[in-house]
Amino acid sequence: MALKQSAALEALTQALKRLPGVGPKSAQRFAYYLLQHDREGAGMLAHALLEATERVRHCVRCNTFTESQLCETCASSRRDPTMLCVVETPSDQLMVEQTLTYSGLYFVLMGRLSPLDGVGPTEIHLERLIERACDGVVREVILATNFTQEGEATAHYIGELLKARGLRVTRLARGVPVGSELEYVDAGTIAHALRDRRAVDD
Amino acid sequence: MALKQSAALEALTQALKRLPGVGPKSAQRFAYYLLQHDREGAGMLAHALLEATERVRHCVRCNTFTESQLCETCASSRRDPTMLCVVETPSDQLMVEQTLTYSGLYFVLMGRLSPLDGVGPTEIHLERLIERACDGVVREVILATNFTQEGEATAHYIGELLKARGLRVTRLARGVPVGSELEYVDAGTIAHALRDRRAVDD
Repeated sequence: MALKQSAALEALTQALKRLPGVGPKSAQRFAYYLLQHDREGAGMLAHALLEATERVRHCVRCNTFTESQLCETCASSRRDPTMLCVVETPSDQLMVEQTLTYSGLYFVLMGRLSPLDGVGPTEIHLERLIERACDGVVREVILATNFTQEGEATAHYIGELLKARGLRVTRLARGVPVGSELEYVDAGTIAHALRDRRAVDD
Repeated sequence: MALKQSAALEALTQALKRLPGVGPKSAQRFAYYLLQHDREGAGMLAHALLEATERVRHCVRCNTFTESQLCETCASSRRDPTMLCVVETPSDQLMVEQTLTYSGLYFVLMGRLSPLDGVGPTEIHLERLIERACDGVVREVILATNFTQEGEATAHYIGELLKARGLRVTRLARGVPVGSELEYVDAGTIAHALRDRRAVDD
């Protein structure tokens, strides 16, 4: 005699399971929590979901999420239009912005090459990236995809395409993270840090 | 120069952060995922949230989530009305049902006594439980709250109240879990299992 829950509760649990990394137990916990302790939050979430799916689209220039044609960064006159930084996701873009050391523009792939998952050049908008990078103003493209296998492969692929078009292509430096002890850094990272060692300035 | 995201995206991230255990990073990941890969899912989730908050309420008899006055279990004529099992949440009720060995009725506290979090007897509906248990039909109340400190305290508190009203009150047996090796079971559990040892039947 399996206990039948309310159909609306069941539907809510199923819908919450579509969130990435959320399994049946978590989905049920979320559903119970919202219904028992935060019905106001549930209403707000429903409203936010509808608003966001209706309003949020992609910047026609850099492909990040925005509510207008052009995102604020692309529309800003204070950014250096000769530099283009290629990142996988808007979160990565936020991380680069937080360094407060980059004033160029961006292109957001919204993914990485991953043939096994059916993500090819089209899915990460490479044609648009090439068109964007070859606008005659961009002089340097900084590849800031992740340092994972897929991120590296994506950077390599994009790098080849852009170099063939005469652009200067760079990659974020690999090396020892700030604050870390050599003893706990992997050998591959140390090898890269050795190879890319730099002269100590006065 | 902090990068400003779309306001709708920001609102969605904030709303997702209200889910229990979801921090800013996870909320952002959920939001990006829905907007990038599953706008249909976002719409379904919004709909399910609205439906559930509108439809789901508490069973007037056992306090579990239901869409009608009485939940299916309470309304069923095939359940034994002399047994009442007290659980903390509807998930716990589901777990007891899955054993297929209990045919009585339930009372769902929707929480546990936790004075530090402001959860007292009123919040877990103890007055309704006492009224329910003293209906003249219930003969045994099985306390199936969790075996945590708060769950134990709740069971003790409820037990005293009900015993004072002349009801037979029992607690789920503590003991060695099925399939476990003694070597890895804590001493407290083994102590309980020793004390509550039972004669081996033929």
